[in-house]
Amino acid sequence: MPIRATVWGENVHEQKNKAVAENYPKGMHGQIASLLSEDKNIVATTVTLQDPEHGLTVKKLAETDVLIWWGHAAHKDVQDEIVNRVAKRVWEGMGLIVLHSGHESKIFQKLMGESARLNWREAGERERLWVVTPGHPITKGLPPYFELEYEEMYGEPFGVPEPLETIFISWFQGGEVFRSGLTYRRGAGNIFYFRPGHETYPTYHDKNVGLVLRNAVNWAYSGQHHPQFEKSANTPVDKAHEKIVERGAKLSNHPA
Amino acid sequence: MPIRATVWGENVHEQKNKAVAENYPKGMHGQIASLLSEDKNIVATTVTLQDPEHGLTVKKLAETDVLIWWGHAAHKDVQDEIVNRVAKRVWEGMGLIVLHSGHESKIFQKLMGESARLNWREAGERERLWVVTPGHPITKGLPPYFELEYEEMYGEPFGVPEPLETIFISWFQGGEVFRSGLTYRRGAGNIFYFRPGHETYPTYHDKNVGLVLRNAVNWAYSGQHHPQFEKSANTPVDKAHEKIVERGAKLSNHPA
Amino acid sequence: MPIRATVWGENVHEQKNKAVAENYPKGMHGQIASLLSEDKNIVATTVTLQDPEHGLTVKKLAETDVLIWWGHAAHKDVQDEIVNRVAKRVWEGMGLIVLHSGHESKIFQKLMGESARLNWREAGERERLWVVTPGHPITKGLPPYFELEYEEMYGEPFGVPEPLETIFISWFQGGEVFRSGLTYRRGAGNIFYFRPGHETYPTYHDKNVGLVLRNAVNWAYSGQHHPQFEKSANTPVDKAHEKIVERGAKLSNHPA
Amino acid sequence: MPIRATVWGENVHEQKNKAVAENYPKGMHGQIASLLSEDKNIVATTVTLQDPEHGLTVKKLAETDVLIWWGHAAHKDVQDEIVNRVAKRVWEGMGLIVLHSGHESKIFQKLMGESARLNWREAGERERLWVVTPGHPITKGLPPYFELEYEEMYGEPFGVPEPLETIFISWFQGGEVFRSGLTYRRGAGNIFYFRPGHETYPTYHDKNVGLVLRNAVNWAYSGQHHPQFEKSANTPVDKAHEKIVERGAKLSNHPA
Repeated sequence: MPIRATVWGENVHEQKNKAVAENYPKGMHGQIASLLSEDKNIVATTVTLQDPEHGLTVKKLAETDVLIWWGHAAHKDVQDEIVNRVAKRVWEGMGLIVLHSGHESKIFQKLMGESARLNWREAGERERLWVVTPGHPITKGLPPYFELEYEEMYGEPFGVPEPLETIFISWFQGGEVFRSGLTYRRGAGNIFYFRPGHETYPTYHDKNVGLVLRNAVNWAYSGQHHPQFEKSANTPVDKAHEKIVERGAKLSNHPA
Repeated sequence: MPIRATVWGENVHEQKNKAVAENYPKGMHGQIASLLSEDKNIVATTVTLQDPEHGLTVKKLAETDVLIWWGHAAHKDVQDEIVNRVAKRVWEGMGLIVLHSGHESKIFQKLMGESARLNWREAGERERLWVVTPGHPITKGLPPYFELEYEEMYGEPFGVPEPLETIFISWFQGGEVFRSGLTYRRGAGNIFYFRPGHETYPTYHDKNVGLVLRNAVNWAYSGQHHPQFEKSANTPVDKAHEKIVERGAKLSNHPA
Repeated sequence: MPIRATVWGENVHEQKNKAVAENYPKGMHGQIASLLSEDKNIVATTVTLQDPEHGLTVKKLAETDVLIWWGHAAHKDVQDEIVNRVAKRVWEGMGLIVLHSGHESKIFQKLMGESARLNWREAGERERLWVVTPGHPITKGLPPYFELEYEEMYGEPFGVPEPLETIFISWFQGGEVFRSGLTYRRGAGNIFYFRPGHETYPTYHDKNVGLVLRNAVNWAYSGQHHPQFEKSANTPVDKAHEKIVERGAKLSNHPA
Repeated sequence: MPIRATVWGENVHEQKNKAVAENYPKGMHGQIASLLSEDKNIVATTVTLQDPEHGLTVKKLAETDVLIWWGHAAHKDVQDEIVNRVAKRVWEGMGLIVLHSGHESKIFQKLMGESARLNWREAGERERLWVVTPGHPITKGLPPYFELEYEEMYGEPFGVPEPLETIFISWFQGGEVFRSGLTYRRGAGNIFYFRPGHETYPTYHDKNVGLVLRNAVNWAYSGQHHPQFEKSANTPVDKAHEKIVERGAKLSNHPA
């Protein structure tokens, strides 16, 4: 059964900015979905901020194996209830790929437990992404590095927890560096942050970027469902794995 | 200058449950502060949920190097605004030590990006904590393991991110195991989760527990202040570290 | 194309100890290969210490995607040259699964940079392995825990580096705990250490153990070859990615 | 009691290359020791490759809290027996700071379990080191980044395990990036790799480099001694922490 990837697009700058609209006539989400569809093992669909429940209904999320998130201008317009719903699905085992300016989305900040702050500059600089972990599923088939001639600069320090793995590090013309590919797990869900993707540049037409995204979807897919991550559970004395006798003082009502 | 440690106590079960009141006549926070005060390098004070702003005013937090958190029954009564204030101070470099049932406090869940769920049983079981990282500052002076004759059981899976370091693993009589000491960093702040401390047992009178807490305060102390973790910052073209020329399409107003 | 798994067996106690021979009439390597072969995506073959070059010829290693290692009595008899050859293949991208007493094999110690010491007791204790990372490919399909009624005890501290991920933690009847499943990467190669497998007990006939091993082979497989991990490489000035001019003092002959 | 830091210098290029001799009239080891001595809490001494036992006698190592290692041209001349002795002391709790070309020293390769390969170019490029972990003890007091106008380039991929923490990332003029500060623990010993320090440039006269080295010595110091990391230990049935009865088949002679 193929992997069901849902691309969430904010779909704001495509409507307002001519450069963005020209780069992405199908919307950024549409172009990202096209890149994913080059892999026969992935079935990609799209939803946007403007859809009812931002397109992230309980049903849609239940049918999503990996969610890809691109947002920038309207992070605040995403409802908290939907953010919590997405987080719960990640804990259950849904993969999540957060792109570029999605670093400041509510869902990424919530899952990181940090602000995900960084330094930035929009000047069309050359970015060179170095593969730091050859052999990792996300870098399979890539050259040792690849370049994006026009990109927004993101610079360290990046306000995120120490990752499981640092996959890419970017060099920028203006003198900065950035950890451009990072992996995390939250609950049973795999998370990948991938830096490139400023809307005024043609980043999601780049073939290496496409390969990274397809690899990342395959890596993030768990095929597992672990609803237990939502809350604590009591194992009573008579269900203990080894025979024990209850003793000591007790709270009459335990609220854990 | 000594380390300024603030012990935050929920102070609910001490008022309602006789066993807890007998174990901790000064309150749990009072007893924890006593343990810390055995280290001449630590000045410990206490605040509680019932204090104005839960005792965590901007001023008090500014004067806190390491915050110790014990809560259980009233996690929901902690105001979100105060939780966000504490998180911001952690990102700035304040240390945070979360104890026992504090795993489900708003502040810990926020910083972890997870539910911090676990399995539990209140049956006065024997817990044996094994030191997994000899040589770590938090385990300095400890024997290879130590026992708490009466404790609540916490069992895996613990719904937290992969830690920087696993410091302790607990064995329980009833057959479970638990990662009882875990380190994290969020922003510039060091975080230590330490499992023991059920209120109906005399855990905070144990000498090894006291040593762990004092070690942890010393470890978590950074002596640094990094307010930049709160938000992203622009580095304009004329301040770039290497000379660059702006090029390519731009968003007129960049909301990052 | 299926994954080519090679099971390396020491094959010493099978020849000398009646209990071992009765447990494993095909040899431990033979039984482990049988477990792997239940997965149609794996083609498992076996080699042993007694084979020429311990069965690990350059050709055989080149045709191995994932190597499984069981040894105990004869670690010292493995030639250093072969150990170095295996390490090089791991760096290139071959997966490695080290089982039980293989913790003190030359290859594991070399890749860990530590002694891999532990505490042990051979008393036929009950071991209960708890899944610490639900959602991980290695734990797919497992229950929350599983038991082995008879096993050798291994106890902490385990002298290994902090892992990428702690997959299993074991509870032992005699009061110890142990990190029973740990992941690492060295070069481009994935490494999994899995604790159970004392030769006098029927561990490799257990269905959960079989599932873990098959999952681990699938996880460790990279399908990639990165020979560059063997040595440093010069990028001369005229091949620099950005135009630079050589300057400053030089060593006449650079030995790096 | 102050921290006893021993600086190990290869002391080869200082004798052969005029630029190196002019940069470092006291030897590189002498200059590094001078930097450390600016901290009143550190007592720094020096030893060199040419000393009996390379200066690393059992006695000297027993009196060393943190060892600093600079080598380049003569890695192969370091005796294996001494390398093993140093590794054992690290496992026991001695700190180790490996500098620049020390990445290919026997001791670093042994502790990493990898080749520690990288890409390099000797062209006097500008290096800009970005602090990735503000709040860490090693970066205390540093600006957000600092520059070394003349340095050798080291580029990714760096053939080392995923670190505990990535402390610095370097930007190079020629287009490469490198993880310039990495922390590890092996046994009870803290390890820090710090990239800068090519011998033909005046790197160890830089004030930020000096601060990093002093911070790193303070961080790496454990003040602990854990000889148990050298080998496995048996815990017999009658010493088990919980009462158990021996059962099942046994190996007559257990070689673990």
